[in-house]
This record gives sequence, structure tokens and C-alpha cells, in this order.
Amino acid sequence: MRYVNREQKERMNDELEFKLVEVLNCIESQVEQSIADLDHLVRYKSISVELKYRKIGCDALEWVANRLASLKFRTNLIPISNVPDSCFQEPLQNVLFANYFSSPTKTTVLIYAHVDVVPAERECWFNEPFELSIREGQLYGRGVSSGKGMLVGWLHAFECWLKVNSDLPINVKIIVDMLHEVGSEGVQKYVETRSDFFLDVDYMIFDANSWLNKERPVIACGLTGWAHFGIQMRGANKSLEAGLAGGLVFEPMTDVCHLMNSMLSNTHEIKIPRIDHMVRRLSVTEWQLLETAEFSTSKYMDRLEIRRLRHEDNKVNLLQNRWCKPTLCLHGIEGSDNESECSRTLPMLVTGKFSIKLVPDQELPSIHAAVQDYLHRMCTELHVSTHMKLLLLDSCEPTSWSTTSRHMNALSRAVTEIYLKEPVATAGIAVCLPIASVYRRLINKPILLVPYAMRRDRHHQENESIHEDHFVRHTKVCASLLFEISTLNVKCKCGYIPEYCHLKGVAERLAAERGENVVVESSFRKMISKLRRRKVVHQPPPERKTKKTIADYLCGPLGKKLLKKRASKPKKESKQKEASPERASQQIKIETENIS
Amino acid sequence: MRYVNREQKERMNDELEFKLVEVLNCIESQVEQSIADLDHLVRYKSISVELKYRKIGCDALEWVANRLASLKFRTNLIPISNVPDSCFQEPLQNVLFANYFSSPTKTTVLIYAHVDVVPAERECWFNEPFELSIREGQLYGRGVSSGKGMLVGWLHAFECWLKVNSDLPINVKIIVDMLHEVGSEGVQKYVETRSDFFLDVDYMIFDANSWLNKERPVIACGLTGWAHFGIQMRGANKSLEAGLAGGLVFEPMTDVCHLMNSMLSNTHEIKIPRIDHMVRRLSVTEWQLLETAEFSTSKYMDRLEIRRLRHEDNKVNLLQNRWCKPTLCLHGIEGSDNESECSRTLPMLVTGKFSIKLVPDQELPSIHAAVQDYLHRMCTELHVSTHMKLLLLDSCEPTSWSTTSRHMNALSRAVTEIYLKEPVATAGIAVCLPIASVYRRLINKPILLVPYAMRRDRHHQENESIHEDHFVRHTKVCASLLFEISTLNVKCKCGYIPEYCHLKGVAERLAAERGENVVVESSFRKMISKLRRRKVVHQPPPERKTKKTIADYLCGPLGKKLLKKRASKPKKESKQKEASPERASQQIKIETENIS
Repeated sequence: MRYVNREQKERMNDELEFKLVEVLNCIESQVEQSIADLDHLVRYKSISVELKYRKIGCDALEWVANRLASLKFRTNLIPISNVPDSCFQEPLQNVLFANYFSSPTKTTVLIYAHVDVVPAERECWFNEPFELSIREGQLYGRGVSSGKGMLVGWLHAFECWLKVNSDLPINVKIIVDMLHEVGSEGVQKYVETRSDFFLDVDYMIFDANSWLNKERPVIACGLTGWAHFGIQMRGANKSLEAGLAGGLVFEPMTDVCHLMNSMLSNTHEIKIPRIDHMVRRLSVTEWQLLETAEFSTSKYMDRLEIRRLRHEDNKVNLLQNRWCKPTLCLHGIEGSDNESECSRTLPMLVTGKFSIKLVPDQELPSIHAAVQDYLHRMCTELHVSTHMKLLLLDSCEPTSWSTTSRHMNALSRAVTEIYLKEPVATAGIAVCLPIASVYRRLINKPILLVPYAMRRDRHHQENESIHEDHFVRHTKVCASLLFEISTLNVKCKCGYIPEYCHLKGVAERLAAERGENVVVESSFRKMISKLRRRKVVHQPPPERKTKKTIADYLCGPLGKKLLKKRASKPKKESKQKEASPERASQQIKIETENIS
Repeated sequence: MRYVNREQKERMNDELEFKLVEVLNCIESQVEQSIADLDHLVRYKSISVELKYRKIGCDALEWVANRLASLKFRTNLIPISNVPDSCFQEPLQNVLFANYFSSPTKTTVLIYAHVDVVPAERECWFNEPFELSIREGQLYGRGVSSGKGMLVGWLHAFECWLKVNSDLPINVKIIVDMLHEVGSEGVQKYVETRSDFFLDVDYMIFDANSWLNKERPVIACGLTGWAHFGIQMRGANKSLEAGLAGGLVFEPMTDVCHLMNSMLSNTHEIKIPRIDHMVRRLSVTEWQLLETAEFSTSKYMDRLEIRRLRHEDNKVNLLQNRWCKPTLCLHGIEGSDNESECSRTLPMLVTGKFSIKLVPDQELPSIHAAVQDYLHRMCTELHVSTHMKLLLLDSCEPTSWSTTSRHMNALSRAVTEIYLKEPVATAGIAVCLPIASVYRRLINKPILLVPYAMRRDRHHQENESIHEDHFVRHTKVCASLLFEISTLNVKCKCGYIPEYCHLKGVAERLAAERGENVVVESSFRKMISKLRRRKVVHQPPPERKTKKTIADYLCGPLGKKLLKKRASKPKKESKQKEASPERASQQIKIETENIS
């Protein structure tokens, strides 16, 4: 039994639910204030792609930090040096880590937000893009339907909960970035070193512009992944001069070009067999969603100034390519040397780079094997005489969560209550949100994608906007979601964070209710140590079932070789697996400073 | 009439020829000294590819400068800053400009030499590579069959001429580089600004390792050229994210890959029609030369550690590809952004780079047209929907000089006299010497390629060597060539360098012979001004006949369009042409400091 007293928990939930009504009313009453806040944030010209606006981005982040600090968050503005060879430049990037710790008996969520925006040209807008302007109930301004609008929603959800309840229903951690639109490279590197901050996170929350039409909100339960490959071909033992060796040797560059070319047809269709195996089939609802999606192929072409699209005559096919099917993109062919503009050397180590977008429920090893099989076959067919090696440069598996899982239901309830429309939960239509995948690789917890803007809100385009009503509802969804998550079961984390123990939390709460101010520390410690000896109860979460590896999928001779190899060395591998949890536990550090 | 007194000139030639015998004897007598000099130069570990040896390269160059200064050369060591963004590094490259001015009545040659070498690993050599060692008459050491050996030959040829005659038979300019093996980039940029130094040059002399077999020396009368192209394709108006737009748009990267691929067959043969038009056909002698060339396909493969060569079963075909036929090499495909390692953007401006080696008597416009026609046809055939543009990034026409021209005969005489074998002069077997092409583009004067090492001397490889006898003969060829060039007709240059006038030179000489020490300046000036008014005699060299342009070769619709365009604007073009000589003469600056 997870909860010491289920009745008690239910009573608390009822109390909170009662308070939620007050919170929503409170949000309604301070709409003007939240719009003023949005205006204030929009006025920061935090265009991350231009270096000269970085200082303004830092200011915007500081403003958010101050707001969060006033909402009882512990905030930590961390400078990040992301300019390489910066012998004279000071770091121009900060990241905000904020933490609200309420109780160890509560769930912890991590919210990701950002304050930076893409550039905006005044002449393409009705009004000044870096001021909020209202026109027929629509709020216009750069960032209102991307980072800034969402962030203000969360701030006001927290504020109203604190006003009504003096406490949030759950523990909340926030990371606010200021270089999101340029890839968050510095932050990505930094967060990888901060596993301590993420140790207690149960769910991650991202805002997504996932409304496909204006009828029903969409809850995306799937994220696309990617596999970034390099075809490396090696010719001679050194680079040669084109004038001397050209025409004599078989050049790796030419062979890579032949191989890259063999993967895509003239109409850019993928020619690799088995590449779309295991792709989730769309349900009727999902199909209808694509059909009714607000997407105009002609407007899309106009915006990009292109003449043709691959499936311009069929919107559903086009959108399936975007969200539901794997696609292959070539990124370039490079020689080993970073030579000057017009160097005429024949590089003897050449890498052709391409990536495949993966969608639920594709598995990386199967794709890796399909690509490897195909390229080896092509090498034989094209009589390639240079040495080929397929490198997996980077990858991220696609993910999906069951549309009926508890946390998705919690989000669904929050959205339904506020919009009074049942959202469509879909895993077949996957969202491409690279930043979410970055955190997913690090934390591996379910992600809740809160539906925010619609396509018509022109996210990242000129005259970006959000409807006032929609903006307020989003704030309410945030507030409601905080409550809905608090009703979910909470896992006790004392197996790896002693302070995050339910027993301790409940003991403290009971003591508080009895009006006692007793230090339960010593008896609590005894309890913990007892529990640790009986590892059965408070064991760490079970290991995921062993995944298949690439060798299981390889059909060619390479696969057989790999399988043989594995069969001959079973003991060593199992040992390594056993060793890994021990190593992981050694690496865990406890963030004691966060305990209030 | 070019010479005031032909008899006088002939008498002087006879005198010099008599002295040449003494010079050759002098060279014979100081062989030990020249080998000691070679040893001294080999000991400088001037490996240009490694930055740490740059200082040593500078030292070697300084030694050469001192030697030349002692041989009455005016020397000028010029520092070149070739490290970009060098906020803290001092320039690590110098170039030596040396000038020996004897008389305005004499021909001026420019000799190119270099003191840097490629790396050498001790374990692959019989002896220490950076010390001269002698084994069965063969001199071993890094650089003996490339830059250093040739340079020492020239130094001793000068020295002996000065000992015997107190003067060189011609005016000599030398450029000594120390980053030849890494592309001479800094020097290339510098020499482009020094047109004043090259104004009076009549011939350029490079040393080439052009002995194809050990039987007969080869005088190469042709240089390969190149055309470096970029296929630029433009898709949308910005780069897109692979996860979002991949599969929707037609990607320029894929199209470039298709086009690059369409130019070469699986066996790497060029598929562009008309690409080998106008290639000079080989004579029987040239064919025999290729057949008897010292070239082992298996050793070549072993050295490069490759398994296959394109024409491994036919040495003549292979060597024809190397020296006599155009070849096409792909150099890479780049996106517009210089992104990080694993960026998954779809660059919307992509450039695929490739180059074609040109051989005599190909013409660049015809090749350009053939490539353009072919790619436009391919765009239609492959239904490419992105915009294609063919860029000519860099080019250099191939050149050849008649094997019976006066200067080639002079070289041939010098070689015949010393080796007692008649050399084979060939224009069909062209030499790839990019540095010669660089100077050729700048100076456009005939180039004499002095045959130096043989293939067996393992130029640039381990155990690089030169036979002692061969080394001495090369020094003698240098000395003999100085004489042979002095017998050629000299053009009067007073049209653009007043001080380089024959009349003045001859007047001075006659005055000297009469024992007079008269300043002939005032009368000389009058003469010059008279001559200038009568431009018929001392006119600048005639313009080269108008070359065909690309429009003449284009068969497709583009060609017709260009031809039409040209037909409609004939006047403007002719005006421009008339204007050019005037502009050229304005730019000319006179190097007064060099007049002794």
C-alpha cells in the first residue's frame, strides 16, 4: 500500500478540488494583470539569433527569476559560457533553474519554458511586434503564441494557487531558457551535468502548439525521434591532389554520392526497404483530424517561396509525411579536411550525413539494421571498391504514451474542464519537439504536452497572436493541471532520496495537524534504515525489459556475425548489466539545499 | 632591327659560350662544396605542414637569402601574415624575393624555388631523413629530389658564373617560398600585389620531376588547367528543420546529390558529352613514352593502401588519365550554414563542388558550356524543382608551348649538351604544377620546366634521393640554360619600363668600352621621347587574338540567349576592349630600386 491513509488523501483531494474553483475565479479576476505581464515580457526584444540582443534576453530572464522568487520559488540564475574561443567575450547566456518544494508526499513536475523569440520585421506587422496590441480580442506580439505567452500563463496559475491555498498542489521545478530558438546548445550541455536537479521529477510538462483545427484541442501522446547517420568511406591512406590522382583512383567522395543518391528516388521517396515497418497506423479519428487540420499547401508554398511540394495535391498525405511517417533527409557530404573554398584535393576519408525521422512505434535498432543492410547491398550492386562504414552519429528513439494512461487522463480532464470540449488524444500524430527529446533522454519520465496555440495563431510568423480567451483558458488549464496531477499516485522516492519519503512527509503532516512541533527526525531515521534493510518495499523502479539490439534485426551476413559474437560472449554482457545499477546509485547526489 | 649591332651581339655570345666551358669545369671542381651545401639545407627540418617547424623554415629561408646576397643578389625577406584571426600569433611565414640585375639589354627570368618539405618518419628510412647520406652514389635525404636539391643547383650555377665571368649572362629574379607543400596560400595573395616585381620578366623557370623513364629526359611543354564548379541549388527562402519540413519540400541537398551523381558512372567515368573534345592526340613518341614510363600500378596501390585502381590492367590508359585526359572529381556538398556536427536542418541553399582537370588544347568556355548544357538537361530529366545555378568558382586554362619554339629549343640544347641525350619535348603529356599556373595567371610568360628527378627518386616518399651524378648534371643544366637564354632575342621594354631600354644599355656599354665615364642620360632621354612619339617601333606586345567565350559553345537555349544578348550589345563590348590597354598602362609601376 502506497498511502498510509487513503481516506486522508481523498479528503485532501476534495479540499483541493474545492479550492481549484476559487483559483479559476482568481485567474478570471486578474486577467488584466496577466495581460499586462505578457505586455511587459513581450517588450523585451530577446531575439536569440542576434548576439546584440543577448543582454536583453538576460534581462528578461532576470525579470522571470524575480517573479518566481516572489512566488516562493528558490531561483538560481546560472551563467553559461557558450561562445567557443571566447578569450575576450563574457558569457551571454544564462539559464534559470527554479524550484518550488511543497512536500515529499507530493508529485514533482518539471516545466520547460523559454523567454527568447525569433526575429520580427516591423514592416510585416500590423503593429509594433515588440509591444502587445489587441485587435478584435486577439493579442498580437512576438512570442505570445510561443515561449512568452505560455510562461506568463504558468506564472499566473502559480500566483492564484498561492493566493487561494498558500501552497501549490504539487512540487514544481522550472527551467527557463533564453536560447531556445537557436538550439539551446549551452543549456543542453549544462543540464547533462545536473542530474541531481532532476532526480525527483515524476513528469515533464512542455507547451505545444498542437491545436490542428479550431474545433478540438489535441493532446499529443507521441514524440518523433531521429537517427542521424554518417556513411563514412575510406579510400587511400591520405588525401590526394585532384590534378595528380584524379581519374586514377576510385574516389570515396564519388562513392558516397552514389550511395546517398541510391537512398532516395527522383521524387525524393525513400528507397530503403522495411523503413516504414512498425509505423503506427492511424485511427479514423486521427485521419479525420488530418483532414480537418488548418493547413493550406498553397500558403505554405508562398511562405517558403517554393514552386512545388512533394504531396501538394493531397493534404493528408502531406501531413502524414510531416507527423506520421519516417522521412529521410540528406545533410551534406564532407571531406576529412576542412579545406579552403576552392581546394582541389581528393579527400580520402569522406562522410555523407543523413538523418531519418522516426515516428511511434518504430525502433531504432530495426531502422539501423534496415539502413545497414541496404547500404551493404548497394555497395555490392554499385561495385564500390572503397571501404564503407555506417556510423550512427546521434539518435533518439520516438516515444509514445498510452492515450489512456493516468497522466494523459489527468491532462485530458484539465483540458476538458476548461475548454468544455473533449480533446483528441493521439499518439499516431507525433510532435517534433527536439528540446523535449533532449530532456527525455536525460530524465526518461512521461511528458505532458499542454495544447496551447492554434496554427492560425501564426507561431513564429509575422503577426503572431493568441486569442485573449484562449490565453486565459491556457492559464486555467495550467492551474487545473497542477491539481489533476496532485490526484495521481505518488511514488515514494526514499530509495534514492531519503528526504523524499512519504513516511517522513506524512509523519510531519500528522505532527503539524496535532499542533505538535516535534522533531521526528530520530524515529524517522530508524524507520528509513529499517525500510532500507527490507529492500522489498522501497525498491528502486524496476528495470525496463531488455530491448532488442541491432543484431536482432540484421538479416545480412553482418547480423549473423554479430549474433554469433553475442552468443559466444554471454557472461561478460550480463555482468555489465548487473553492474550498471550499482554505478548509477553511486553517481546519485542528493540536493539537500532544496528541502524547505 | 632589334639589335644595334648584330655582329657585336654574336661576338658577345661566342665569348660567353667559351666561358660556359669554364663554368661547367668550375661546377665539376666544387661538387663537394655543393653537396655540403645540400647537406646543410637538408638539415633544416622545414616541414611546412607542422606549425612547430615554421621557425626552422624561416631560418632555412634566411640562409638562402644570405647565400644569394653573397652572390650579388638584392634580397628582400618579406613577412607574410597567413594565420587568420591571429590576435596573438606573429607571422610564421616569410617569402624571399631576390633580384640580380645585370643589364637592360639582357633577358630576365624568374625562377621559383622552395625550401620546405613534406614530413618524413625516421623508421621508414635507411638513414636519418634530415641528414644527407650517400649510398652507392645516391644522395638520400628529405627534399633532395624536390625543392632543396633544385635550389642548391641554381645557387652553384650562379656562383660559378660569377667566379668565371663576374656577371650572369641574364637578369635573374628568384622567389623562394617556405610553404610550397601546403599550398603557398599566403605567398599567392602577396605576389598578386607585386606586379611591379614581375613587369620585366621574359620567362619563368620551374624545376619539374619530369623524367618518365631513366632513358631520356622529358621536357614538358604543357601544363594542365582546371575548372572548379559549384552547383548551387536554392529551395525555400530559409533553412528548415528536418523534423518539420522533411518529406514535405523538395530538398536542394537531395537534388544536388542527384545531379552530382548524374555526372559520373558507377565506374567513375565522366558522363558529360563533349567533355573530351579538343584534347590533343598523342604522338607515337608520346605513346611510347607512356609505355616505357617507370610506373608500377601495384606499387602505387600498395603505397596508397587501396585495393583497386580505375585502369589497373592498362598502364597507358591509367597514365593518360593522369596526364593527357580531362578528369572530373567531386569535392563535397555543403549547406549554406556552417552548422554543428549533428545539426538536422535542411539547408535551403546548397552548393555541390566539383572540378574538371583540363589538358591541352581544351578551352575553358567550351567545357563550361558542355557542363552547363548537361546539367540543365539533367534538371529536366530528373524533374528537379529547385532552382539550379552553375557557378564557375575558379579556373585556369591549360597551356602548351610549341615544342619547337625558341625558348624550348634553348632548354633542349642545354639539356642535350649536359646529358648527351636528346630530350623528348611533349605538350600532350601535360604537367600538373598548380604553383606554375598561379604565376602563369599573373605573368603570362612562357614557362621552362627543367627536368630534374626521376620517378625512381621517390620524390615526397620515404628514402627520397637523387643520384650524385644527376644532381651535378642538373647544376650544369642550370648554368648552361642561363647561357642559352642569353642567346635568345630580347624584347626592348622601354615602352613600359624606361630603364629597360636596349638603346640605353648599349649606349652605356659602348661608353664603357671606349673607357668613357660619360653620363648619357640627357641624350638618351631625348632618344626615348622621340621613340615614344613614333610608337611604331617600340610598341607594347600585340594583344592575344580574341578568345571564344562560353556563348560560342552553348548549344542549348541558354547559349542562344547569350548570343542574342551579345549581338544586341556589340558597341559596348568593343569599347571595353579598347579601354583595357590604357587601364593596364595606368596600373604599371616602375621598379626603380632595382636598377643597379
